Amino acid sequence: MKLYDMELSGNCYKVRLLCALLGLEYEAVPVGLMQGEHKQPAFLALNPRGQVPVLEDGGTVIWDSMAILVFLARRYGGERWLPSEPAAMAHVMQWLALSENEILYGLARARAVTRFNRPWDLASCQELGQAGLKVMETHLQTREWLAGSNPTIADVACYPYVALAPEGGVGLENYLHIRRWLERIRSLPGYTAMPGV
Amino acid sequence: MKLYDMELSGNCYKVRLLCALLGLEYEAVPVGLMQGEHKQPAFLALNPRGQVPVLEDGGTVIWDSMAILVFLARRYGGERWLPSEPAAMAHVMQWLALSENEILYGLARARAVTRFNRPWDLASCQELGQAGLKVMETHLQTREWLAGSNPTIADVACYPYVALAPEGGVGLENYLHIRRWLERIRSLPGYTAMPGV
Repeated sequence: MKLYDMELSGNCYKVRLLCALLGLEYEAVPVGLMQGEHKQPAFLALNPRGQVPVLEDGGTVIWDSMAILVFLARRYGGERWLPSEPAAMAHVMQWLALSENEILYGLARARAVTRFNRPWDLASCQELGQAGLKVMETHLQTREWLAGSNPTIADVACYPYVALAPEGGVGLENYLHIRRWLERIRSLPGYTAMPGV
Repeated sequence: MKLYDMELSGNCYKVRLLCALLGLEYEAVPVGLMQGEHKQPAFLALNPRGQVPVLEDGGTVIWDSMAILVFLARRYGGERWLPSEPAAMAHVMQWLALSENEILYGLARARAVTRFNRPWDLASCQELGQAGLKVMETHLQTREWLAGSNPTIADVACYPYVALAPEGGVGLENYLHIRRWLERIRSLPGYTAMPGV
């Protein structure tokens, strides 16, 4: 298995984290985003979107972090990380959707503004991110994990950019239940970190 | 089955379209977004995010259009609309991800600026939307459907805001294969329209 990767990307880290939790070995192939390698024909042939991460497993190529999490969970994770029962699967999907919306366009974009000088409006990214955190905080008041009674790819997908939120100027002081949830994730067997989390 | 709905929402339309294609009956419950009904406690108890659509099916409540598509496909669609084989499922997920990123934050936001006076930067929304359309156009040059050899929820998720793109100032004149794909969707048995598509 090959993972086209970038160390500081939270989206790549989602995949590295799930691989670590599942005990999966892979070869990491660093992609030089600063040198524009992701916009060269060789990489675009793997992912026409020109983004990391991309996973190659045998002949199968999957782009997009959410799609890769679904692939790994269903192929290597049994029923634990993405259950197949329709309502249980949809409850995981709800949080994958939050991770692609409030978290990615809120928290991750706010961090991209402060860390990588991206041109988005910081205040509106932070506001969208806060809206997502409030939904999570309320939900986690009475639950240990986002979907069902054990960790799933919902937790893996939401974790990186929530843990990195302070880098984008969104502190977690007021989110007690989210901080406890972050600690639970850090205590999972096999857990691996990334710079900043 | 109850669908909390808003006629002009492309995200609600995704669910109405899949129900129509699956031949599923439901009761539509219009939510008064203009009156702020989606931010009232009764609605927030169903969906803490305060957004339509929400689906109720027996005792199961699902929020988020992507999660609802997954739920309906797995519960009522057999293997056709969301296959369970890991690579095939992940290939559908890739396009659900595109629908939540380039299409929602690009094309749908551009339309929200021009139609509903939302405060986002029109040019950067249009640019992100065009990036998504280019990926789809290239992919559809050699394929009839986004994932696999028949229509799936990938097509249902991407269709509404691509069809509505011209309302946000993104014309489809240069996207021949996308226009043909839109026609194929409109020809599916059970197809239903929404205003503007």
